[in-house]
Amino acid sequence: MVDGKVPDIIVGRLPLYLRALSRMRQAGAQVTSSQELGSQIGISSAQIRKDLSQFGEFGKQGTGYNVPFLITQLRRILQVEEVWDVALIGIGDLGRAIANYAGFVDRGFRITLVFESDPEKIGQRIGALTVQDMAGLEEEIHRRGVRIAMLAVPAAAAQPVTDRLVGCGVRGILCYAPTSISVPPEVQVQYTDPVLHLQHMTFYLGASQAPR
Amino acid sequence: MVDGKVPDIIVGRLPLYLRALSRMRQAGAQVTSSQELGSQIGISSAQIRKDLSQFGEFGKQGTGYNVPFLITQLRRILQVEEVWDVALIGIGDLGRAIANYAGFVDRGFRITLVFESDPEKIGQRIGALTVQDMAGLEEEIHRRGVRIAMLAVPAAAAQPVTDRLVGCGVRGILCYAPTSISVPPEVQVQYTDPVLHLQHMTFYLGASQAPR
Repeated sequence: MVDGKVPDIIVGRLPLYLRALSRMRQAGAQVTSSQELGSQIGISSAQIRKDLSQFGEFGKQGTGYNVPFLITQLRRILQVEEVWDVALIGIGDLGRAIANYAGFVDRGFRITLVFESDPEKIGQRIGALTVQDMAGLEEEIHRRGVRIAMLAVPAAAAQPVTDRLVGCGVRGILCYAPTSISVPPEVQVQYTDPVLHLQHMTFYLGASQAPR
Repeated sequence: MVDGKVPDIIVGRLPLYLRALSRMRQAGAQVTSSQELGSQIGISSAQIRKDLSQFGEFGKQGTGYNVPFLITQLRRILQVEEVWDVALIGIGDLGRAIANYAGFVDRGFRITLVFESDPEKIGQRIGALTVQDMAGLEEEIHRRGVRIAMLAVPAAAAQPVTDRLVGCGVRGILCYAPTSISVPPEVQVQYTDPVLHLQHMTFYLGASQAPR
C-alpha cells in the first residue's frame, strides 16, 4: 500500500486527519464520516476519501469510519505507533518553550537531548533534561541513535548545525530558524516560520484593511 | 495582476521567495536567477518563474532578477510594505517566546497587544508590552483596529477565543493551538503545529530507522 509513490501533499494532510480524529476520540466519538471530519478541518469530504484510499479501505459505505481503528491505521502509516527520540538544538526563548511543551509525547515524539553553545546555558536543567554542550552533539546523537532533530538556532547557525546533524545520522530536521537549509536527498526537512504564515494571510487581507 | 484567482499554493510560496531574497540582499547580492533562488529553497526554477509570472514580469531573459526590485514587488503583493499590528493571545511558554521574538518587525509585523486570562500574568511586562486582561479583548482590538492575531492558547480555548476575535474585526488568525478552528469565509486562518511537521517526516523515515 505504502509504496513511496503517494504524493507528498497527501502525506502532509494525514497528520491533520490524525489530529482531528484524536480530538474526536477524546470527545468520545466512536464513528465519524468524511463529511464530519472534513467540516472540522476545512477539507472536502471527497478529498479525504481520495487521500485515505491511497493507503487502503478504512471506511464502509454508509457506516463511515471507526475512529479508534482509523487512528491506529494513521499512526501505523505515519510511523508514530512508538515514540521517537528527538534532539533539540538551541535554547533561546523558543527552544525553551519547545522543550517545555507537553504535547509531543502522546503524538509520537519525546525530546531526549538538548544542546546549546552558550556556556551560560550549558548544564541548566529544563524539566528532566540537562542542556548539553554542542561540542558533544555528534557523540550523543550517535550513541542514542537519534534520527530526528528540531533546530531552534539563529539563521546564521542553521546550515553548519544541519551539516553536523546529518553527519551523525539525523534523517529528519524540523527547522525553526527563518532560513532554508540544504540536506542530502535521504534527509527530510520541514520548516516552521510564523512570518511565512502571516505573510500568506496578508495577501488576502485587502487594501481596505491595510495597516494604519 | 492580482485578481484573487491565483492558486493559494502559489501565494503560499511567495513568502518563501521573499525570505530567501532578503537573505541574499543581506549577503550583498544585487542580481539572482530562478536557478539560484530555486537551489536555495528546494523549488525548481521553472516553478519559480511560473509562480512569479502570475503577478507580472519581474525578470529579464538572460539577466535574471534584480534582488531589491523583486523584494519590493513581493512586499507589495503580499501587502507587507508597512508593518501590521498583531494581537497575541496567551502568555504561556510559547506565547512568551513569540512576544520576545525579534524577527517580526522587519518582515511586516509588530505585536502591539498581548492578552491572557491568568490573573497572575495580567499586568506583567514583556519587553515594551503589558499583558492585558482577556476581558478587555474586544475593546482594545477594536480601538486599535488590529486585524491579525496569533493564538497561543490551549486547544480547548481556541474556538471560543477565535469567535471573540472574529467578532471584533480580526481577519487573519495564526493558530498555534494544536486544533482546527472554524471561521467565516472572510477570515484567513493559518496553523502552525510542530507535530504535524514531525509526523510528515516520520512517514518517510522507514522501518529500518524506527524508534528503538
